[in-house]
Amino acid sequence: MAYFDAASGLPLHPVARQALVAALDEGWADPARLYREGRRARMLLDAAREAAAEAVGCRADEVVFTPSGTAAVHSGIAGALAGRRRVGDHLVVSAVEHSSVLHAGDVHRSGGGPVTEVPVNRQGAVAPSGYAEALRPDTALACLQSANHEVGTVQPVAEVAEVCGAAGVPLLVDAAQSLGWGPVPGGWSLLTASAHKWGGPAGVGLLVVRKGVRFAPQGPVDERESGRAPGFENIPAIVAAVAALRAVRAEAAGEAARLRELTDRIRARVPELVPDVEVVGDPERRLPGIVTFSCLYVDGETVLHELDRAGFSVSSGSSCTSSTLMPSHVLKAMGVLSEGNVRVSLPPGTAEEDVERFLSVLPGVVGEVREKLGAPAPAAAAVEEDVLVVDALGRRCPIPVIELAKVIDRVPVGGVVRVLADDEAARLDIPAWCEMRGQEYAGEEPAEQGTAYLVRRVA
Amino acid sequence: MAYFDAASGLPLHPVARQALVAALDEGWADPARLYREGRRARMLLDAAREAAAEAVGCRADEVVFTPSGTAAVHSGIAGALAGRRRVGDHLVVSAVEHSSVLHAGDVHRSGGGPVTEVPVNRQGAVAPSGYAEALRPDTALACLQSANHEVGTVQPVAEVAEVCGAAGVPLLVDAAQSLGWGPVPGGWSLLTASAHKWGGPAGVGLLVVRKGVRFAPQGPVDERESGRAPGFENIPAIVAAVAALRAVRAEAAGEAARLRELTDRIRARVPELVPDVEVVGDPERRLPGIVTFSCLYVDGETVLHELDRAGFSVSSGSSCTSSTLMPSHVLKAMGVLSEGNVRVSLPPGTAEEDVERFLSVLPGVVGEVREKLGAPAPAAAAVEEDVLVVDALGRRCPIPVIELAKVIDRVPVGGVVRVLADDEAARLDIPAWCEMRGQEYAGEEPAEQGTAYLVRRVA
Repeated sequence: MAYFDAASGLPLHPVARQALVAALDEGWADPARLYREGRRARMLLDAAREAAAEAVGCRADEVVFTPSGTAAVHSGIAGALAGRRRVGDHLVVSAVEHSSVLHAGDVHRSGGGPVTEVPVNRQGAVAPSGYAEALRPDTALACLQSANHEVGTVQPVAEVAEVCGAAGVPLLVDAAQSLGWGPVPGGWSLLTASAHKWGGPAGVGLLVVRKGVRFAPQGPVDERESGRAPGFENIPAIVAAVAALRAVRAEAAGEAARLRELTDRIRARVPELVPDVEVVGDPERRLPGIVTFSCLYVDGETVLHELDRAGFSVSSGSSCTSSTLMPSHVLKAMGVLSEGNVRVSLPPGTAEEDVERFLSVLPGVVGEVREKLGAPAPAAAAVEEDVLVVDALGRRCPIPVIELAKVIDRVPVGGVVRVLADDEAARLDIPAWCEMRGQEYAGEEPAEQGTAYLVRRVA
Repeated sequence: MAYFDAASGLPLHPVARQALVAALDEGWADPARLYREGRRARMLLDAAREAAAEAVGCRADEVVFTPSGTAAVHSGIAGALAGRRRVGDHLVVSAVEHSSVLHAGDVHRSGGGPVTEVPVNRQGAVAPSGYAEALRPDTALACLQSANHEVGTVQPVAEVAEVCGAAGVPLLVDAAQSLGWGPVPGGWSLLTASAHKWGGPAGVGLLVVRKGVRFAPQGPVDERESGRAPGFENIPAIVAAVAALRAVRAEAAGEAARLRELTDRIRARVPELVPDVEVVGDPERRLPGIVTFSCLYVDGETVLHELDRAGFSVSSGSSCTSSTLMPSHVLKAMGVLSEGNVRVSLPPGTAEEDVERFLSVLPGVVGEVREKLGAPAPAAAAVEEDVLVVDALGRRCPIPVIELAKVIDRVPVGGVVRVLADDEAARLDIPAWCEMRGQEYAGEEPAEQGTAYLVRRVA
């Protein structure tokens, strides 16, 4: 059994478990009360806030504990936007933020607020110049993750903070994926994080608002958490969260080096072991534990299921594994293949043997899935035509790409395959397949039913 | 050591503790994932939802787990108001709701939405006719607590639900104080509760939205909890919360009878043991464990401090124990004395000896505080004048009332004492003192500084 989905969440760190159990006895009472149980709870909360501030690199009175990372993001964005209402209501986010950031952006947009999405390159990284171009005189807030949760790419936060600082725009950094590895560098204004990503319990998020940043909490508030996070404080979980953060930080340097070696190994060997694979994300500027690749002619759900049967818990940004049947917005923004997508995110302590076993199991799993789906054999018989129509209407990812691949050799070089498809993933995956295969993607056009994707044979 | 502040929160029930520790191992993963850890977490979450529904008396798919009772109230009110936007935006609440309900009302009011507060009688109860009068054709939502958190008075929920039902207005019931004792009767539409009030952990609230109730979640949401409570589910805490609810329900009938006998004893004996005390709240229709009384000529903070030194943790609605220096809105709405207010709320399992010890300690504590503050001796020398001015400007509760009591015998029957005060509690406590003492409260008028409160000697 190997759990390789650390980016979704980690089991409770043993140190956090110990802290949680102890704090259940000492920290259950209302810290606003004057009697001894209340004072004891208050002391635990104050100590946790001090320790969290030290780990973040901020003042204790800048730290707000929220019920989740998502709550931290939602209230951080809403409060920062409202605090700068006089300046304007323009919001800037990267195209690859966590869905909690994008959802907050959607709410802002549906209320009439303009939102600009900064694009990323094929590695998933924004350019500081992208933020410089997006900022306007009425920009109230910019958001950027410290590192991407799906492909591990580390963002140039310090540089973007500088760009924002020069324009007088506060930058909110979603540090959910990186805070366990170290503090976020640079002159950011707000920071959010989520404890269960670093081995703390669920139910604890962090919202840091630097002194001097205009901030107006939205919605009903009370006297808790400086009026920035209403509701009874969950002190045992907060104490456990901070204990976990200190524990993982103490081992971060060594563990980062170890995991980086293991993910390097996966990055290098998966394309050798499995044909038609694209490893995505920045090969250098990346988190130690995340590696993501996409396999042509494979559907993500079946691969996840087969890997689970083989004892590996991984995640996928493929459309068939999402309830909306939409491919991951991150892979889409990067312009890379989403079909057969597999994200491996190794928890601290992952054993080398487990990674080796994963590498030995993967080729068979992918091969079987491809066989079942009738993926093209390496050398298909070529029947030459000038335009060949593939009807994949009503077929889901990865079938449209499989059908395309089966026939591309049947048109002459210069000829065109016209793929009719109505699955949303095709819009992303057909161009990505062209890129991988060195064929020319000639655009899409509306068809009687669905969309026609045109691919010109080059090679 | 006796913790008598159950209405603020309870320590974790032993059954909940066991469930929490077990679920830390089994329920930490993302229940939306397809691999085994995710499926295991999903099973725990589903089972907890079924059990919660059974305890509430609703369908499992009507139950939403939120990060706190406060979050349940805030999102329940916002979602129900938005769901009925077409009908209107009028909100009805009782004057003695929990602050989370009133805060949500404040936000609604500040956005231009009309809010009507239904008054309560001197026992703290609303009348169903009060709701009938408050409802309008544009009423979107009515809110009523199942029982009051400060004085224990049980509200006529079923009758109010009938009134609301007849008008086609949904009723949201805040059941935070009563759900551990039993299901809420009647045809309510939405229900909220908070696990740490019944011995569950902090970090879990319940929001129940009956099928057919129009509901439009506000703010950013995600795919969690049917799109009604965003953020990673805190499954170990949810499992523990539901385990605690089942455990306290199993013992509710016996424990209610036992606690009711103990609070009856306090209600009867405190006025015998301590002079100048008003016991507040309904003597019959009340929660088993809560009893509240106010002591003339005493400041709440000192009494709490002295009781804490004597080993008793209690709470107070006095102005001097709140950060805003405002007396409790509940006591104010009831029109009862707020000074020297003490709320005793007994947790299940409270030992009879602890209650007896409390009754033996209380008279000495109150007597000492009164002596320190120079409270009037039973028989003061009377120097007769027609109007006597008492200058209590700049003095905090309970000094203005103490000064009034000291001089009332110095004016002839029919004469007036004019108390100058600028402490907000005086506005509530001087009329309440008059009621308790059988003197006539003749109203207030603006003074050069502060307010003049006029008291006519009758007896």
